[in-house]
Amino acid sequence: MPGSTRIIPLGGLGEVGKNTTVFEADGEAIVIDAGLAFPRDEHLGVDLILPDFTYLTNLDKPIRAVLLTHGHEDHVGSLPYLLRQARVQEVWATRLTLGLIKSKLDEHGLLRSTELKEADPDGEPVQLGPFRAEFVRVAHSIPDAVAIVLETPGGRIVHTGDYKMDHTPVDGLRTDVGRLAEVGNRGVDLLLGDSTNAERPGVTGSERLVGEAFRQLIPPREGRILVASFASNVHRMQQAIDVAVDVGRKVCVVGRSMRKNINIARNLGYIEVPEDVLIQPKELDDYGRGDVLILCTGSQGEPLSALVRIAYNDHPAIKVEAGDTVIISAKPVPGNELKVHDAINELARSGAEVLHQEVAPVHVSGHGNAEELRLMLGLVRPKSVMPVHGEFRMLAAHARLAVESGVPENRIVLAENGSVVELDESGAYLTGKVDSGVTFVDGLGVGDVQDVALRDRRHLSEDGVLIVVATLTGQNGSVAGQPELIARGFAEPGEPLLEEMREEAQRVLDGLIKDNVTEIKLLQEHLHDGLGQLIYDRTGRRPMILPVVVEV
Amino acid sequence: MPGSTRIIPLGGLGEVGKNTTVFEADGEAIVIDAGLAFPRDEHLGVDLILPDFTYLTNLDKPIRAVLLTHGHEDHVGSLPYLLRQARVQEVWATRLTLGLIKSKLDEHGLLRSTELKEADPDGEPVQLGPFRAEFVRVAHSIPDAVAIVLETPGGRIVHTGDYKMDHTPVDGLRTDVGRLAEVGNRGVDLLLGDSTNAERPGVTGSERLVGEAFRQLIPPREGRILVASFASNVHRMQQAIDVAVDVGRKVCVVGRSMRKNINIARNLGYIEVPEDVLIQPKELDDYGRGDVLILCTGSQGEPLSALVRIAYNDHPAIKVEAGDTVIISAKPVPGNELKVHDAINELARSGAEVLHQEVAPVHVSGHGNAEELRLMLGLVRPKSVMPVHGEFRMLAAHARLAVESGVPENRIVLAENGSVVELDESGAYLTGKVDSGVTFVDGLGVGDVQDVALRDRRHLSEDGVLIVVATLTGQNGSVAGQPELIARGFAEPGEPLLEEMREEAQRVLDGLIKDNVTEIKLLQEHLHDGLGQLIYDRTGRRPMILPVVVEV
Repeated sequence: MPGSTRIIPLGGLGEVGKNTTVFEADGEAIVIDAGLAFPRDEHLGVDLILPDFTYLTNLDKPIRAVLLTHGHEDHVGSLPYLLRQARVQEVWATRLTLGLIKSKLDEHGLLRSTELKEADPDGEPVQLGPFRAEFVRVAHSIPDAVAIVLETPGGRIVHTGDYKMDHTPVDGLRTDVGRLAEVGNRGVDLLLGDSTNAERPGVTGSERLVGEAFRQLIPPREGRILVASFASNVHRMQQAIDVAVDVGRKVCVVGRSMRKNINIARNLGYIEVPEDVLIQPKELDDYGRGDVLILCTGSQGEPLSALVRIAYNDHPAIKVEAGDTVIISAKPVPGNELKVHDAINELARSGAEVLHQEVAPVHVSGHGNAEELRLMLGLVRPKSVMPVHGEFRMLAAHARLAVESGVPENRIVLAENGSVVELDESGAYLTGKVDSGVTFVDGLGVGDVQDVALRDRRHLSEDGVLIVVATLTGQNGSVAGQPELIARGFAEPGEPLLEEMREEAQRVLDGLIKDNVTEIKLLQEHLHDGLGQLIYDRTGRRPMILPVVVEV
Repeated sequence: MPGSTRIIPLGGLGEVGKNTTVFEADGEAIVIDAGLAFPRDEHLGVDLILPDFTYLTNLDKPIRAVLLTHGHEDHVGSLPYLLRQARVQEVWATRLTLGLIKSKLDEHGLLRSTELKEADPDGEPVQLGPFRAEFVRVAHSIPDAVAIVLETPGGRIVHTGDYKMDHTPVDGLRTDVGRLAEVGNRGVDLLLGDSTNAERPGVTGSERLVGEAFRQLIPPREGRILVASFASNVHRMQQAIDVAVDVGRKVCVVGRSMRKNINIARNLGYIEVPEDVLIQPKELDDYGRGDVLILCTGSQGEPLSALVRIAYNDHPAIKVEAGDTVIISAKPVPGNELKVHDAINELARSGAEVLHQEVAPVHVSGHGNAEELRLMLGLVRPKSVMPVHGEFRMLAAHARLAVESGVPENRIVLAENGSVVELDESGAYLTGKVDSGVTFVDGLGVGDVQDVALRDRRHLSEDGVLIVVATLTGQNGSVAGQPELIARGFAEPGEPLLEEMREEAQRVLDGLIKDNVTEIKLLQEHLHDGLGQLIYDRTGRRPMILPVVVEV
């Protein structure tokens, strides 16, 4: 009897971030990636965004395995939360990815909560209940990334993870086009493909181009050189280090996450730094400005990162000055542009020359452009295509590429988070929806801050808050004393408007009590509306008004 | 006796926006441009940002004249506020700019508050007290833009305004390189030059390139076509209209500011639309989807704009569907990226194909790149250069271009808003500072919301607010009843934490009263700190805590 497989994306569709996809067959489930997303401006005060794992926590059986394609936060960042909320038998990942998540799970005190297994792109497939998983090497902006081929009861599935077709990657480990072609020859029923750069024509530049830019830009400079990049971009760091070694500069690594990652990568052999090249930040002053290269975090303008503290002259060990060069070897993630520009401006103000991706070839994307997606489609020749990893416009562009490559329109599955996709011998179809959505991490709370709290924060952030406290004494509630007003975020203390509002509150209360209205809810409502109207008429603003009536 | 001139930028330096520069000599002042800036995310609830005009309002004499280089908001937007705060004898601007500001002053009820005079780029210089002003045509993304040559007691100054060296502008009115060269031959003591694109190599594309893209993209399409652009980009609209006319599509203009501007531009002869081509939104359904082209606002993803309402299916007259094409003919201003992406995603979800500047050549900048700035430096051959219009990194890049073009380093003036620059026969020098800064427009208030209010809004927006009301009765202050707690934006009603906080508040109060502490400030402080610690321990959050103690 031919079987079927259910594919349920819980994150990563219609967004860039929190990539998480469930595969179910014969009562067993596996999950590819467990990512997180970073909050946008409207997520006031929120620290992290996770997929809603309700569907997974309600499963009858433990999750057979979580398979990770690579070590980026949008693919592994929610793993600690998933492990806390659901039962997971095994986590599979390649060597570097395992190294990175071990450190993460250790910080969360979760190292012993699941079995960690090393996935080998050169090894045999692994059987996970009804699923057989095969890991295929792909090039990306972090080493040891893989695509995953799944043999499932419903058919053969290829999940690309994040990839580019870099034919000259820094570690020489190319996207394994031969294996992908061979898998294509076996026959692929469904491709889940990275859509991030589907809108961009042509081919993404090789990571090696950034090394070439470093090789041109760094040697002639005389001052300090700072290179900021993502802390996980091991090859980027390697290329900067290689040039530093060639020109005889010492290398200093600054920023917690970069120091951590470079240690992990060195211990596992993913990065090579001669021992005598590395120096500590406190040693920097022992060397001339032209004798050091500083690798640092902060390429996204993150408020407390090394680069931003340096930019605002707030770093204990490092200052920049005229003659220094700062290379921001990254592109701002949409939403971070202003923070990055602010940092660039502050650095320029110190006299440093700042080279960033708008003005110099110091960054390439880790995601394949349209021609690379076309090559993937050509290698894998899938019967059906489900674009994943991307905002809707990117998924739609990927769908157009698939149609152009010969996949029939009715074999394109444009799913969203929570969609249930059934794959069987007749094809892949949207058949339903499960609970999906977002879980906010805010301070220590996971999931306790919800839309109401955010709506309140938004309201408070627009026009501030006014608290009016009225005290009623006696059974028949004659007003005792003046109402007390506290305003924050919309009027300065001592403003005449505050006195006017107090008089209005008094007038409202006196009027109501004269009419024997003493019910607290009614008093609050009238105070709220009366003051709201007055404030709007005077200022055009609508602060949150919180009336408190105290009966003594 | 040789004279001197003071140049005081009040806005536009170290930022993109609110360009405003004061020129003073012999006790008289003129101002070039009076712009505004748009709030960033950290300006919670603020509507507009103006320069601080204190310096101008404190002048002994009325301002002799305000000269406007072109009609963009960042050059004319604060004019109504300046006219209300300071005495201004005359406002000079070219014809279209005058048309646009008349409409703006009319809305503010200020049409009769100053004398409006038409500046003629082909006419004679005008004498304004000790200043002689000459208007020189430049190409920009709005017609009728000018640079201004000022003969002043301290020397000859060229202020470029915003410009590009477009050799094939849509209206044929090129940047007047001949006049600029002739002014250069006369000898220029100081150049104030637009720095916006100083970091970008090469040359900005001609506006005509966008027309060519329209001409390729529009004719083969069969569904509705929407073109969103800045409402002031008259030539962009003209080019879209021209293609529509050629392919026999009717044109519908949607969005208040675009309808207003197109009317002004038509009345003044800056845009040509055959009468029978324009249709009203309510007529749209009388035409086939392939027979109309819709020009609309919303190219920056502005929340209430036409395009955004259309994207979210919230527009009374217009829906998009599969087969339709949306051309976003603009680049997101930094900070607007996510809003624009959101709109693109929603439009793609409706099935429309969305062409935007990341994927199609549907936009060019209105500002010259490095080679154009070099050409300006070569034409004008200034003795000193003061980069204006731009963030610090742009000013610094412009300064580098000036040095490369032969201006000595000590003749480069890197000023900031509020700097006082003295120009005399010996050169241009920073000599002091005046009050400068920002004035927030928030609702009806101009300048009443200040940093304290913003800091409070920021605090409220991060973690919400907790109000605790305690009632003390009797002279010796025995606590009457339980403290009352109101939380907004950090805990949901009914949460156990709220009860725990109430008990903590009670405990704190009881303890203090037992110790005979009844001073309200002290009670408030202890409530604040006790609850703050409890909340931080439990949640990792720091809401604003407002304790109210009521004595009855």
